[in-house]
Amino acid sequence: MTISERTAGEGVVYGRHPVVALLRADGRRADEVAVLAGATGPLSEVVALARRAGVKVSYRTRDQLTAIAGTARHQGVVARVAAVPYVDVAALLQVPTKRGETPFFLALDQIQDPRNLGALLRTADALGVHGVVVPKHHQVGLTEAAARTAMGAIEAVPVARETNLVTALEHLKKSRIWIYGAMIEGGIPPWRADLTGPLCLVLGSEGQGLRPLVARACDVLLTVPMVGRVGSLNVASAGTVLCYEVARQRALRVPKSP
Amino acid sequence: MTISERTAGEGVVYGRHPVVALLRADGRRADEVAVLAGATGPLSEVVALARRAGVKVSYRTRDQLTAIAGTARHQGVVARVAAVPYVDVAALLQVPTKRGETPFFLALDQIQDPRNLGALLRTADALGVHGVVVPKHHQVGLTEAAARTAMGAIEAVPVARETNLVTALEHLKKSRIWIYGAMIEGGIPPWRADLTGPLCLVLGSEGQGLRPLVARACDVLLTVPMVGRVGSLNVASAGTVLCYEVARQRALRVPKSP
Repeated sequence: MTISERTAGEGVVYGRHPVVALLRADGRRADEVAVLAGATGPLSEVVALARRAGVKVSYRTRDQLTAIAGTARHQGVVARVAAVPYVDVAALLQVPTKRGETPFFLALDQIQDPRNLGALLRTADALGVHGVVVPKHHQVGLTEAAARTAMGAIEAVPVARETNLVTALEHLKKSRIWIYGAMIEGGIPPWRADLTGPLCLVLGSEGQGLRPLVARACDVLLTVPMVGRVGSLNVASAGTVLCYEVARQRALRVPKSP
Repeated sequence: MTISERTAGEGVVYGRHPVVALLRADGRRADEVAVLAGATGPLSEVVALARRAGVKVSYRTRDQLTAIAGTARHQGVVARVAAVPYVDVAALLQVPTKRGETPFFLALDQIQDPRNLGALLRTADALGVHGVVVPKHHQVGLTEAAARTAMGAIEAVPVARETNLVTALEHLKKSRIWIYGAMIEGGIPPWRADLTGPLCLVLGSEGQGLRPLVARACDVLLTVPMVGRVGSLNVASAGTVLCYEVARQRALRVPKSP
């Protein structure tokens, strides 16, 4: 996080007691707890509490903490707070059940740019995605920058954050959801896959695409055929294309009224 | 343009002689000429030259010119320069002919955000668009911010900038190109339209969509069906969906090898 992001409205809580209160009340809402490197005593209690709540802990210098908090009065600990709370995969699975719809999920593997996350959440809401799964590490959180790009969709599409993305995908598979991974090359064209059943699309990071372990967890790999002379679709564009293809196939599957 | 954009590499030429040289050498490359309000003499000659070259002229205060130029030594005139030169519609029409492909163009009606323009150029390159038409006014130019988002595609996809977008669309129609406008609502789903012939997709601005005059110039209106509880697809996402649908239909039209 940079200072300019913070002053643009990033949620930050600093000081020992406020951070402890946050972790006790709503641990899922904390994106990260940054702690003064080498600190002991009361701070190690905060670290233990963060770890029990499953929140990422990072170690920083005093100046770094001051930059994140926007003040030197941080007492050695600053928590970054998600713009909306996260849920878990079990909660995501209830969304299509409640609506009586065929499950349609999106998993994001280490997306870095908050604008890409925000754009994908906006697309997900517009095209009928029931929920999004993200990993806890190496992935941008539900920051205010993501919320701005999502134009309100960050409140409408539930996001589950899991320590291990592959484990989360296995969890979905046990609920009879098929996993479709987006590859830059080597997959089948999306229109040749049957995307009308219960499914989760998986998108990789901006630079690297899907990690090999994540790709192996997929049932089917999809590639949007490209003819460009320069490069590939941006990850938000590729995700939009695949969400549209799911929506298109499902709309055609519904019998027309006579 | 803000100062931060400029220092990030926006192309600017300032001073009477440099601007005159630019307009004489390559008028199509200038996005805009900003002139000191109320100035006469040599500056009115620069204005006349800009108008003859078809370049937009705006009037500013001395402080505004200093902010744009990044220096007070602007002599009352600053030109903003496109990251790549523009072409004209006739040049665009030659691209598919040379490649022996069915024409596929994109027209953008008053897009404001350089990142949306850049994202659309990147998508256009990846999905086989032969060229893009933009209006001269109320439309972000080929700035460095757009070029950064386009990731090189700004050099690969030719852009024609026309004073009157409707006239440009009529020009395309005379070349037997069908015009498909993207509407937020009221159009047919893209998969119900035949997008395999020579065509130009038209996208409206972020807030307003297509202007009524532009919508009336379209042969067919398309709407991506949306189910979202929050809002609509971003213009770059909607454009990506429509470009994909064209590519999908054309790929399926090609007979499979036995």
